[in-house]
Amino acid sequence: MNREELFHQIKKKNTYLCIGLDPDLDKLPEGLPRNLEGLLEFHKRIITATEDLCIAYKPNLAFYEKLGHEGWDLLTETLNFIPSSHFTIADAKRSDIANTSDQYAEAFFGESLPFKVDAMTINPYMGEDSIRPFLKYPSKWTILLALTSNPGSQDFQKLKLENGRYLFEEVLLKAKTWAGPDQMMFVVGATQPDALSSIRALVPEYFLLVPGIGAQGGDLGKISKAGMNSKGGLIINASRSILYASSRDNFDIKARDAALLIQKEMAQYLRMYI
Amino acid sequence: MNREELFHQIKKKNTYLCIGLDPDLDKLPEGLPRNLEGLLEFHKRIITATEDLCIAYKPNLAFYEKLGHEGWDLLTETLNFIPSSHFTIADAKRSDIANTSDQYAEAFFGESLPFKVDAMTINPYMGEDSIRPFLKYPSKWTILLALTSNPGSQDFQKLKLENGRYLFEEVLLKAKTWAGPDQMMFVVGATQPDALSSIRALVPEYFLLVPGIGAQGGDLGKISKAGMNSKGGLIINASRSILYASSRDNFDIKARDAALLIQKEMAQYLRMYI
Repeated sequence: MNREELFHQIKKKNTYLCIGLDPDLDKLPEGLPRNLEGLLEFHKRIITATEDLCIAYKPNLAFYEKLGHEGWDLLTETLNFIPSSHFTIADAKRSDIANTSDQYAEAFFGESLPFKVDAMTINPYMGEDSIRPFLKYPSKWTILLALTSNPGSQDFQKLKLENGRYLFEEVLLKAKTWAGPDQMMFVVGATQPDALSSIRALVPEYFLLVPGIGAQGGDLGKISKAGMNSKGGLIINASRSILYASSRDNFDIKARDAALLIQKEMAQYLRMYI
Repeated sequence: MNREELFHQIKKKNTYLCIGLDPDLDKLPEGLPRNLEGLLEFHKRIITATEDLCIAYKPNLAFYEKLGHEGWDLLTETLNFIPSSHFTIADAKRSDIANTSDQYAEAFFGESLPFKVDAMTINPYMGEDSIRPFLKYPSKWTILLALTSNPGSQDFQKLKLENGRYLFEEVLLKAKTWAGPDQMMFVVGATQPDALSSIRALVPEYFLLVPGIGAQGGDLGKISKAGMNSKGGLIINASRSILYASSRDNFDIKARDAALLIQKEMAQYLRMYI
């Protein structure tokens, strides 16, 4: 899905919500079998209940990897159930030396895969040649970590460099020389609204993937004001607060309610800022 | 495997070689079927031919992930074939927010897994809370990326901070407050021998995992001189130069020859420096 199509979906559906699909056997609602069939059923009901309220789904690979070999089947079947109108993000945070990143890129972007994803999250620590292999796929998106939502973002990302910039700013500035806003996005945590305005100034055209509202406590209003641009420019993710809105059999209705609250607020901001 | 046991293996076998097990269907030697059975046979013959010359094996997860769902079976069967006398490293370079790193840690260090690994490589960019979940497993090792072997290590790792340190030095100094040398190691590329002496001064007690000899061109002599400490302190990895030493059916003999050359050189350095 290209940038125009993504913006088209945002305008058409009045939402820039992404829903994280992070399967957790321990949190499966009542009434579902605690096995892979139960998890797939859970995903299908969540997707069916929310697809008109969001423009993207983001499976975080850690939750699938934990399920071992069968996790791949769950990932495949989940991705194949997502409507083609939706942007799909493999939240993998991978990267390695070029020769190895080639393998990761092929693992998620390759032609022969049993599933299709539009984008993958990538960790910038290893630099340009670790990221280039993902950019070889012109119709796919590389979503680079810049400033993450967790407390540990203070440890390295927010260190001041000799040149006066923060490390995450240097990541943004270098990375924008590697790929344009039609192929690259950046992760900026919703818990960092103050940094968002300056980030938007550094990369005015790029989409930002913003995790951290809901369970992590980010403020949707502040983020939207600081982060939106004339082409939308934001994909905001919520995972746990939607997926696990209820532990009862009405989990899909409650997930829809939680997503609807966010979507309504997003519709307001789209009217205000675009 | 704890630090004493690791050092014991190094002294007993006169080697600190780690062999990367990075399966690649395109590079499988002649005579092996180009499928998962062929890859497993390849690994078994490589391990059998080299086990007395190395102390560790390191599967890089990218190469298994590329094989999709069956990659997990190959990883499981490969790990289960490695003798228990050998240190095993899942080269995954994972990390995520704490809640998600928990999943990765359980995926590789959990009790119920069909395989056992001693260690996992972790990317530091997301900071302390992304790393803590791996440290919850006291008998397992976290191997944190510090200064990697690839050209992209210049982009961020070698940036100078306001406090006068390089970013990779800050990673070492912060991380050593999170875990001691019995539970943490650091990745330092063999292509960075000049930095190795100063790294050794910052973390004198810690083991360093050093990739980048062989195909990537690092100098074993320089690294050994700069990096060794009184408890060994080095695990040096070679992958392609051993695995793919021959594309013929004699690949295991040629792999052994390549590993033997390295082991003999290592035996010298162990005599000289310990």
